[in-house]
Amino acid sequence: MTYDAFLSRVGAGMQQSAIRQMGTVAAQNPDIISFAPGYPAPVNFAWEPLRAIADDILRARDRVTLQYGPTRGLPDLIEVVQDLMRARGIETATDELMVTTGSQQGLDLVARVFLDPGDVALVELPSYTGAITAFRNVQASLVGVRQEADGIDLGDLDRKLAAVRAEGRRVKFLYVVPNFQNPTGLLLSLEKRRALLAWASRHDVLIVEDDPYGDLYFEDAAGPADTRPIKADDEQGRVVYLSSFSKTLAPAFRVAWMAAPPALAARFETAKQCLDLCTSDFTQHVVIEAVRRGVLASQTPKLRAYYQQSRTTMEDALGAALGSRVSWVRPRGGFFLWATLPEAVHTGTLLSKAMARGVIYVAGGAFFVDGTGTNTLRLAFSLASAERIREGVARLASVVAEELEGTTAAVSR
Amino acid sequence: MTYDAFLSRVGAGMQQSAIRQMGTVAAQNPDIISFAPGYPAPVNFAWEPLRAIADDILRARDRVTLQYGPTRGLPDLIEVVQDLMRARGIETATDELMVTTGSQQGLDLVARVFLDPGDVALVELPSYTGAITAFRNVQASLVGVRQEADGIDLGDLDRKLAAVRAEGRRVKFLYVVPNFQNPTGLLLSLEKRRALLAWASRHDVLIVEDDPYGDLYFEDAAGPADTRPIKADDEQGRVVYLSSFSKTLAPAFRVAWMAAPPALAARFETAKQCLDLCTSDFTQHVVIEAVRRGVLASQTPKLRAYYQQSRTTMEDALGAALGSRVSWVRPRGGFFLWATLPEAVHTGTLLSKAMARGVIYVAGGAFFVDGTGTNTLRLAFSLASAERIREGVARLASVVAEELEGTTAAVSR
Repeated sequence: MTYDAFLSRVGAGMQQSAIRQMGTVAAQNPDIISFAPGYPAPVNFAWEPLRAIADDILRARDRVTLQYGPTRGLPDLIEVVQDLMRARGIETATDELMVTTGSQQGLDLVARVFLDPGDVALVELPSYTGAITAFRNVQASLVGVRQEADGIDLGDLDRKLAAVRAEGRRVKFLYVVPNFQNPTGLLLSLEKRRALLAWASRHDVLIVEDDPYGDLYFEDAAGPADTRPIKADDEQGRVVYLSSFSKTLAPAFRVAWMAAPPALAARFETAKQCLDLCTSDFTQHVVIEAVRRGVLASQTPKLRAYYQQSRTTMEDALGAALGSRVSWVRPRGGFFLWATLPEAVHTGTLLSKAMARGVIYVAGGAFFVDGTGTNTLRLAFSLASAERIREGVARLASVVAEELEGTTAAVSR
Repeated sequence: MTYDAFLSRVGAGMQQSAIRQMGTVAAQNPDIISFAPGYPAPVNFAWEPLRAIADDILRARDRVTLQYGPTRGLPDLIEVVQDLMRARGIETATDELMVTTGSQQGLDLVARVFLDPGDVALVELPSYTGAITAFRNVQASLVGVRQEADGIDLGDLDRKLAAVRAEGRRVKFLYVVPNFQNPTGLLLSLEKRRALLAWASRHDVLIVEDDPYGDLYFEDAAGPADTRPIKADDEQGRVVYLSSFSKTLAPAFRVAWMAAPPALAARFETAKQCLDLCTSDFTQHVVIEAVRRGVLASQTPKLRAYYQQSRTTMEDALGAALGSRVSWVRPRGGFFLWATLPEAVHTGTLLSKAMARGVIYVAGGAFFVDGTGTNTLRLAFSLASAERIREGVARLASVVAEELEGTTAAVSR
């Protein structure tokens, strides 16, 4: 039998995530060098301390460890998160915080609580596909705002907002990833952060600030002052802030959090009840202990140095292999290098050739809500070893070179 | 500032879960005896084997253990689930299975993939609140079908379907919990299971079968033959089946699964990408090992005996304390006893008095989509010790007795 008649409009229209698709390709072919999903390098996981923690927790047999827990998250984890937030310059009350099952759940909650079909969310060009999909799955309209080397283009932001409003449509929020943006790696300047808050107040719009990478600045190019969240200066309560332990401790715990004004946090809590009742009490306990025992604090400097080196390795390899045929803005933190190739190259169609050569990336087009960016690609330098980064870039460069020669040949014919 | 103007219709209309609310009350007041949420008894958790498993897994340092994983679930877990399904009489191919972050996520996926605003889902009267909320949060209409002692009333089912179709509305599926239903504890007869499949085929409707309790039959009243899933005889591919490790291994792993025809499973996978990317690889690994090492197999007989005893303790206490003022159908498995009090008692308003006396339950009204059931209540016998069950029932009985005296007095005035 066929099922089309049973699908909702959303169910029928959903698109597979380009990132997740590539994740499956990588998992099935260990020989493929993956620059595709933004996976942390397992070599950095704090295996032994985490093992000791899990062991202690299960020895202690606290009855709540393996039970259902509160939808908001364990009170001890909320307390731990308050301290982490304070270190980022954000004072939060307990009723402003909620634990989420990864930040993806936070994005889904944002979509459900704010967006009716037809409502507009403003997103960066390009923007994170997980957010794009979450917002589209509630049938919202996404309008893209251009970026410059220091982040979102404020002039374009004003133009886009005015155009949307002229059409009589409602803008609920602007979604931004200010620190080492996914996918571009860009760092939003402090001036622009302040300007965005003033803009949101002036136009009565909310800001959804997604910050999974803020702690992973590279000390040769940025510091904690550069990554101060927008939320830290949010006096009116216009910012919903998301962050995560996935990039620092481990993705597999599925522990992240969001901060929002109490009235909104209560809505998110009610919405989360229907998504998964609660995040794992067990992995929450592991995270609590990992922070309390200093595992997180000793991880982050190590990760900064490690990923900085990986970035440099990738930059050096790209420059040597592709020269002026590729351009990018130097990543000052995070997991991603955003590469732009000559306009003649379509990175979407190039992908199957790259895959055949044993290297994958995410074609940039997936991150653009306006159909542009066909000559861009997101390269995650986070997962592969230095050797594999060099080998992967060499494979990629050979495919790009062939493509350009083919294109040149085609043009000259 | 206020946020009403920013909320979606769904965000503005969401209702707190009555079960989760009571869970919070219980967590904050350890002196309160809770018959409210359907929590497994932590005394039965396989603490030591699970500790050893977590320890082994984190010692092994398999790079995927703490990483992001496939949205479908770990292939080894899919294989493990295939075996468990086979033992229930259900043959599944790998492309028919998906791991979910608790069965609540499965219900949310069902809602999103099938239901447009205004679509109808048929549910039992009463039905599980987590399903009701998930379906309502996509603005579906819920139509309730009465139950008898052996499960859903087939005559009422036909009448309700006819009435809905006469109004020109579309019924996408019937949601049922055939084994030890939440909240009534009822066991759907085998004849009715077969009849439901024929009904679904005749009327071109799907069945969503939710089966978290099937393994927990009580040997004094039921056996594996009585709990054979509807899905086991689903030759046309009309049944979406949900089950979970939460009630047998531990809720805190947040590991459950769903089985559906391949075309639907693919839709659920795409939808899950946007909910949480993937279920925890770490807790999936723990579950895989718990099944492979026989922990699950040695748990279930123990759990059957334990919960059977708890049910008997509660029945004895209720009968002794309330006599003919309370009635119920004997639970033949699962976690719940569904009690009906004299019509004059409103269990919703009684709850605050019960709470003041140190006992909580879930008022039955929350489980009825048609506003009835005000004199019913769901009593979970799963969590409390025998002593606390007896004490809790005594507290409850005293409140009920006072209420009835008050009611009688009021009526006679």
